Parts: sequence; structure tokens; C-alpha cells
Amino acid sequence: MDIDAKLAELGLTLPQAAAPVAAYVPAVEAGGLLHVSGQIPFTEAGELIKGRLDGPDDVAKGQEAAQRCALMLVAQIKAALGGSLDRVERIVKLGGFVASGPDFFDQPKVVNGASELMVALFGDAGKHARSAVGVSALPLGVSVEVDAIVALRDA
Amino acid sequence: MDIDAKLAELGLTLPQAAAPVAAYVPAVEAGGLLHVSGQIPFTEAGELIKGRLDGPDDVAKGQEAAQRCALMLVAQIKAALGGSLDRVERIVKLGGFVASGPDFFDQPKVVNGASELMVALFGDAGKHARSAVGVSALPLGVSVEVDAIVALRDA
Amino acid sequence: MDIDAKLAELGLTLPQAAAPVAAYVPAVEAGGLLHVSGQIPFTEAGELIKGRLDGPDDVAKGQEAAQRCALMLVAQIKAALGGSLDRVERIVKLGGFVASGPDFFDQPKVVNGASELMVALFGDAGKHARSAVGVSALPLGVSVEVDAIVALRDA
Repeated sequence: MDIDAKLAELGLTLPQAAAPVAAYVPAVEAGGLLHVSGQIPFTEAGELIKGRLDGPDDVAKGQEAAQRCALMLVAQIKAALGGSLDRVERIVKLGGFVASGPDFFDQPKVVNGASELMVALFGDAGKHARSAVGVSALPLGVSVEVDAIVALRDA
Repeated sequence: MDIDAKLAELGLTLPQAAAPVAAYVPAVEAGGLLHVSGQIPFTEAGELIKGRLDGPDDVAKGQEAAQRCALMLVAQIKAALGGSLDRVERIVKLGGFVASGPDFFDQPKVVNGASELMVALFGDAGKHARSAVGVSALPLGVSVEVDAIVALRDA
Repeated sequence: MDIDAKLAELGLTLPQAAAPVAAYVPAVEAGGLLHVSGQIPFTEAGELIKGRLDGPDDVAKGQEAAQRCALMLVAQIKAALGGSLDRVERIVKLGGFVASGPDFFDQPKVVNGASELMVALFGDAGKHARSAVGVSALPLGVSVEVDAIVALRDA
């Protein structure tokens, strides 16, 4: 899988794997699964994408935020695996948390921004189970947070 | 385990496994565990059960919604395993998300609608770990979403 | 690892493992991983720590609540493993849910109350992946709920 080539096709670059904003680590491998911490969305310029989503006009912003979370997930997976994505066997599960006003029900469309990137990058191995829910607030005021479980090939 | 007989006893039928409402798959098996996507509640007539839960009067509605999510989880597990539940070794974990107003604190009672169905259907193998939280909004405006992790016997 | 000695150093005692408040079990082992149910915060005196977090003044209360959740997680892990923590290989993942008003964005600081306890008790084996989100309401009105995934050594 040439992820870098696919990223270039999409006009995207993997960000630097961000340091955790608190007392934990980006990813832990156990039992053949890599559990990746919830990632928050940074633009290419390194700005956080912030703000609660309240209505249909906010869907596109949310999708971009979700895509940026997914890019950061991939960056964290690569960093955790010593700089290569070769051991990625399957994206197993994404957990999508969307900062949502009380009448915003488009969490599935929003989290698609993350899901579609995984499939674009990893093909069938990127097809994952998922939950998508609307939460009252997220760290630092961001719009979306996504965590992941990834199945790994033996080292 | 004759799940169909137990369902009949309870006056329930497994629904058709619903197609995901977005870019993901219903379930992924890895490392002996099946991760099942968050399921939303459909009545037997195929209507979504919608609306935030605000007070004690909403508990019964929430429990029914949670039970319907659990039925759909079982339908998805069965579909993922080729039409049989024989490989189900243990329901490991349910994640219950309840659309909750700011003063609704009965998430445990609500999610019991899902938990009790799992125990009724699978017996000791249905006894699971669980989290239950109140969220601001859920996909399509539904009242409850439940995802699952299931331990499988070798194929 | 002498967890009891480390607890004593910190002036903490493991609580009695609380019975689930509903129809589920505290922890399930499968595929080398122990999934532990979401735990809620009790003070040493056995009182629930309740209330939504709304601003910077609530961070310290939230951190204490998160620490108490983590203590209860450790108590549940120990109980699930027959009274000893010797089989704990790694704290893999914590899921932190913080009852948050719409403008409370310090979920990472709050959940640090749990994360830092795990590292204090288990050292490198306590370093975990994490998600931290703000939810609208939690069971019984508590301020924080934390669940966990733990990798175990063979029995």
C-alpha cells in the first residue's frame, strides 16, 4: 500500500504526529490491536478547528474536521509503528465524537469525513466499524474527536 | 443456544440487518473480537425511535429504544457470521449512548433495555461490561445508540 | 509492582469494588484483554461526586472525580483477577466522559486525574491511550465516568 502516493493524489500531507495534550500516550499495542488515542483536528496551518455544530450549514466544516482527525490518526499509527504503515492489517473501529447543538443530527455525515479517508488510503483494509455520537463539548473547544482501533500484522 | 426460540418466547423477531447510514461497515472481526458498529433503534414497523430523554417519564421509551438497538446488534452479529450465532462466545462490552437533556440521569436504567436482552438471549455468555453516558444528540435524532464488542469462537 | 505500597504513599486506599448499578458485570476478559465497565466517582466516605463542570473553577473537582473513577477501576480489575493485580500487563485505553456545560473545554485536564493515577501506580505499564469527551449528563448525576481496557498476562 503506497499511502504517501494516495495522500498526494488527494492533495493531503500527513501532519507531524501531535504530542498528547495530557498525561497519556498516542497509541498502545496489545493482543494484535493498536488502540489509538482520540485525535483532534488541526488544519494544515496547524490551527485547531473549533466550534459546536448546530445545523446543516455546519456539516462541511465538520467533515473537514473529521478528515483532519483521521489524518492525525494515520500519522499517530505510523509513528507508533516506527515510521511505516506496513503492519496495518485493518482499520477495525473508529469512534467519532461530534460537538453538537441539541438539534444537530448529522453526525454520520460529519464522521464520514474520517471514514472516507480511511477507505481512500487503505482500500478494503480501511473499511471499519464505527460509532458516531453528538457530545456537548470537546477538548480545547474543537468540533470533532476521533479515536481508533487498528489490527496489526506481526512485527 | 437457540436464540430464535428465546426471541419467540419474548415476542420479538430479529430485524433485517440495517445497512450502515454512512461510509463504514456493520462489523469487523480481528484478534478474536468482533467490533460491531453503533446501532440505532427501529420499531418493528421500521420507524426510528427519536427524541431526547428529559425526565423519569421518558425511561420506558428509552428502554424500548435500547432493546431495539440490541436486537439490531444481534441481527448484525448474525449477518457478519454468515447467518448463525454459533460462534458467539461472549458479549464482551456494550457502549450505550443516550440522548439526554441536562437533568436526565437514568442512563443505566435505559441501557438496561439492551443489557437485559443480551442476558435473556445468551444467558451467562450475554453478561457484559458496559458504559452508559448521556450525549447531546444522536444520528437522525434517535434516542439511543449502542455499539458492541463480541468474543468469537474460532471459525 | 506493589500497588498497595504506592497507594499508601499517595494517601489513597482501594475502595470496595462497587456492584454495577444495572444489568451488567464489572469486567469481562476475552482475547487477552479485560474490558472494564464505566466507573463513577465515590469519595472515600462513599458519597457520589456529582454535578456538571461549567468553568475553570470546576477543573479541580473534576480531577478528583476522575481519580476516584480510576481508583474504582483498579478495585474492579483486582476483584476480576481474584484479588491480585499481578496479571496486569498494561493499561491499554481509558475512555473518559466528563459531564460538561457547553463552554467547558478542559476535559483533558480533568481526565488527567485518572491518567496520572494509573502511571503513579503501574509505572510504564500504566501509560495508556485515551479519549476524553464532554457529555451532557452521566448516570446518577455524577461528574465523570471512566472505562478501561487492560492487557493481561496469561493466568
